[in-house]
Amino acid sequence: MLLRVRAAVAQLAAGLGAGPGAQPPAEGRGGGAGAGRGSPPPAAFCRPAFLQLTPEELRRADDHTGRAVQSPRDGRRRLPWSTGYAEVINAGKSQHNEDQACCEVVFQQGMRWGTWPCVPTGDSLGSKGFYFHYWALFDGHAGSGAAVMASERLHLHICEQLRELVEILQDPSPPPICLPHDTQTGSADTNQMSNAEDCGEVPNDAVPRFHLEKAVSHESLVIGAIENAFKHMDEQIERERASQHLPGGCCALAAIYLMGKFYVANAGDSRAIIIRNGEIIPMSREFTPETERQRLQFLALLRPELLGKEFTHLEFPRRIQPKELGKKMLYRDQNMNGWAYKKIEEDDLKFPLIFGEGKKARMMATIGVTRGLGDHDLKVFSSNIHIKPFLSCFPEVRVYDLTQYEHCPDDVLVLGTDGLWDVTNDEEVAGVVMEVLTSYEPNDPCRYTMVAQELVVRSRGVLKERGWRLANDKLGSGDDISVFVIPLGGPGNYT
Amino acid sequence: MLLRVRAAVAQLAAGLGAGPGAQPPAEGRGGGAGAGRGSPPPAAFCRPAFLQLTPEELRRADDHTGRAVQSPRDGRRRLPWSTGYAEVINAGKSQHNEDQACCEVVFQQGMRWGTWPCVPTGDSLGSKGFYFHYWALFDGHAGSGAAVMASERLHLHICEQLRELVEILQDPSPPPICLPHDTQTGSADTNQMSNAEDCGEVPNDAVPRFHLEKAVSHESLVIGAIENAFKHMDEQIERERASQHLPGGCCALAAIYLMGKFYVANAGDSRAIIIRNGEIIPMSREFTPETERQRLQFLALLRPELLGKEFTHLEFPRRIQPKELGKKMLYRDQNMNGWAYKKIEEDDLKFPLIFGEGKKARMMATIGVTRGLGDHDLKVFSSNIHIKPFLSCFPEVRVYDLTQYEHCPDDVLVLGTDGLWDVTNDEEVAGVVMEVLTSYEPNDPCRYTMVAQELVVRSRGVLKERGWRLANDKLGSGDDISVFVIPLGGPGNYT
Repeated sequence: MLLRVRAAVAQLAAGLGAGPGAQPPAEGRGGGAGAGRGSPPPAAFCRPAFLQLTPEELRRADDHTGRAVQSPRDGRRRLPWSTGYAEVINAGKSQHNEDQACCEVVFQQGMRWGTWPCVPTGDSLGSKGFYFHYWALFDGHAGSGAAVMASERLHLHICEQLRELVEILQDPSPPPICLPHDTQTGSADTNQMSNAEDCGEVPNDAVPRFHLEKAVSHESLVIGAIENAFKHMDEQIERERASQHLPGGCCALAAIYLMGKFYVANAGDSRAIIIRNGEIIPMSREFTPETERQRLQFLALLRPELLGKEFTHLEFPRRIQPKELGKKMLYRDQNMNGWAYKKIEEDDLKFPLIFGEGKKARMMATIGVTRGLGDHDLKVFSSNIHIKPFLSCFPEVRVYDLTQYEHCPDDVLVLGTDGLWDVTNDEEVAGVVMEVLTSYEPNDPCRYTMVAQELVVRSRGVLKERGWRLANDKLGSGDDISVFVIPLGGPGNYT
Repeated sequence: MLLRVRAAVAQLAAGLGAGPGAQPPAEGRGGGAGAGRGSPPPAAFCRPAFLQLTPEELRRADDHTGRAVQSPRDGRRRLPWSTGYAEVINAGKSQHNEDQACCEVVFQQGMRWGTWPCVPTGDSLGSKGFYFHYWALFDGHAGSGAAVMASERLHLHICEQLRELVEILQDPSPPPICLPHDTQTGSADTNQMSNAEDCGEVPNDAVPRFHLEKAVSHESLVIGAIENAFKHMDEQIERERASQHLPGGCCALAAIYLMGKFYVANAGDSRAIIIRNGEIIPMSREFTPETERQRLQFLALLRPELLGKEFTHLEFPRRIQPKELGKKMLYRDQNMNGWAYKKIEEDDLKFPLIFGEGKKARMMATIGVTRGLGDHDLKVFSSNIHIKPFLSCFPEVRVYDLTQYEHCPDDVLVLGTDGLWDVTNDEEVAGVVMEVLTSYEPNDPCRYTMVAQELVVRSRGVLKERGWRLANDKLGSGDDISVFVIPLGGPGNYT
């Protein structure tokens, strides 16, 4: 993750950073307590519960020198759909692996919820409850606390948001615009749901209803539920950041499979692609100072006090020197995509809100991603300027309808943190996927793990005298790398 | 154009609307005075100068009943590249045709500029000056003043913005980041341009330049010039709106051909597509309350005073009734793409900032487009709430490199106001283009005019007992319709 180390170190002094000793995974990870309820143990360094690492294995996974690739072991519990997973720690940029992963089947019955492997049989939505499949990657920065907590809780917030929609999603008619009174403020009672006619629409209105009401789809309700789950997750991190030792923040990329559709939600610079019959379908876009420049500049223009007299909302191709006052410099304002020249004024000598290019682009000289969870205490180095007002915790959600296409066992959804994508691209990943899958039988449940491992190994490279090197001798990724390879079709995958 | 008639009438009382009598085109239209200089006659109702209408023809063009299609006449001056053009007045929704069009070859030499047909020969950029080809459509609302003025001036503002870039655009090396002092503030002296090294970059800097500077392309300078030209056009309308009788506003769609590339700039709901070898390439997107919802809600959230206690920045699928207080209603906030339920509070009873669907979507119950020129005096009906802060005068500019593909005489760029697109789509337009072009010889210069006419006729329909009807008996477009058909290849077009 792209965070200027200086700033991170400065902000995370006084015990907010992850402690020096790697701790074993917290008990009860991925199960036990409802989102926001109870008093869970402080989020600590750990690896995903589904890896079932022994203390010795955990120590190896935490070793920057060997950078051993981790995957669910043969003979242990297999991930749903035979999902493949692999990860590797960074080459030393942070003390621990700050990526986290989660893979669950989340079910809810009445007021109780649970996770895989206690999955009920039957439809994903039923009168007694519902369940959804869930995969997520969290790429932490400035500590692993936020990523660990998000990996333990985000799916529960999604479950919570979907809970009151169960009856609506089961009903093929359009979702009701309005629901009746709650007896208690804030609690949703799904039994009281009814149609719009019951709650405000006058049936004999002079104007027909369809002229007054906007159609809202079931799909957009699920998208809204996921969006608000991210918001609640972020609020929980904010509430508990002091007591739970949750320094830093994290990017979040989650794939939810519900009622035949994949909902891929992304907040940050992780990426998801579908590879279907050799074709690449992007399922996310990255949120960085470059891709979100106009949103950030717009906010800075409207709320200049957030810049603390240190920054200008204008973008310049480089820092301006005081002696250049009065000369003309290229700039971009919030409503521009092109560049133009302006006469340099005193105010332009401030540091640009957005600065740098590509992977080196930073907002307020501090952070390289503009969406994610956490970062509530993040400030510009040596200042009292908060970064959080510029960050968004809301994901972009893309939908892929699995029922619209007959998938073969080689069709997959790949989720990867930026450690993967920094040194490779869609085409290369698709090439590795096809190459590895071809060398295993279509019904071999290990084949997706083999793909994930190969993707991680090829992005990490091999340790040579001049560091980790790829096959083409370029520098391998020194970042944490985490990859899910989720099969979209094939026998036995839909359980 | 989509403007609630009530509001328009209310705002444009007291003589701001176009007068009842159609006046002949202003003398010297499209030539003579520099942008913003001199004292041109007040913008009045007129049709494009290139139509060369006699007073009698102008009267016919202004007749809502006959709705005669207008095109450049055979035997009169032909448009550059044999461009096709056709237009027709609305079916009575406004007194005059509020669309305007402009087609020019704009050249600049020294401090003078001129327009077609006085085009210099040779390269479009030369030591003595430069020229560019220009086509534009302006779709006015609440009067034709803004559209008329924009059609007379926008290309001059573009010329002005490009002027100081001439030497830079001719130089194949990257544009200089910084230019030296102007001797006079505000005046650009292109002779003083030099490389970045001369003006602030220390050659023996410890860090190499390429690490500090962002690369800026020639193309992005042209985009920036066009964006700022739109801004200056809008500012000119603001300055002169009282003295020049410039009520209302207009959408603007402009295509600029410069140095082998098309720059298509759009602010509003007009649309441009390229049809190349039967393939459709969209060259614009529309800016409406629906497509710009998040920008508008974000602004309203940050500047609630702009809503004047009458509106809420939240979107609801319908108006909420006071008796529904405490119930739960679907809503969308600025950072959401999905929908969710919220408990209805007092504040939610206000009118939603964005309301309605598709062509009926309105911002502040007033306007159906969110970008364009003018509208400085537009207010919400019966209130003191200004609309302009929510409107953007900045276009989105898309670039099409004509040199990257060998074009045949049937490849065209089609520009159309929403009067065209409201009743047709890309595929139908492409079908008409191919059908009509096939029936004329490839070297027949009239063929593009024939296409434009056919597109207008098919969108207008035929007057029957139940109004203007299309071939499929659906309602034809009752709006003003204007269409350019610009050939991208073929003999003799590149002069």
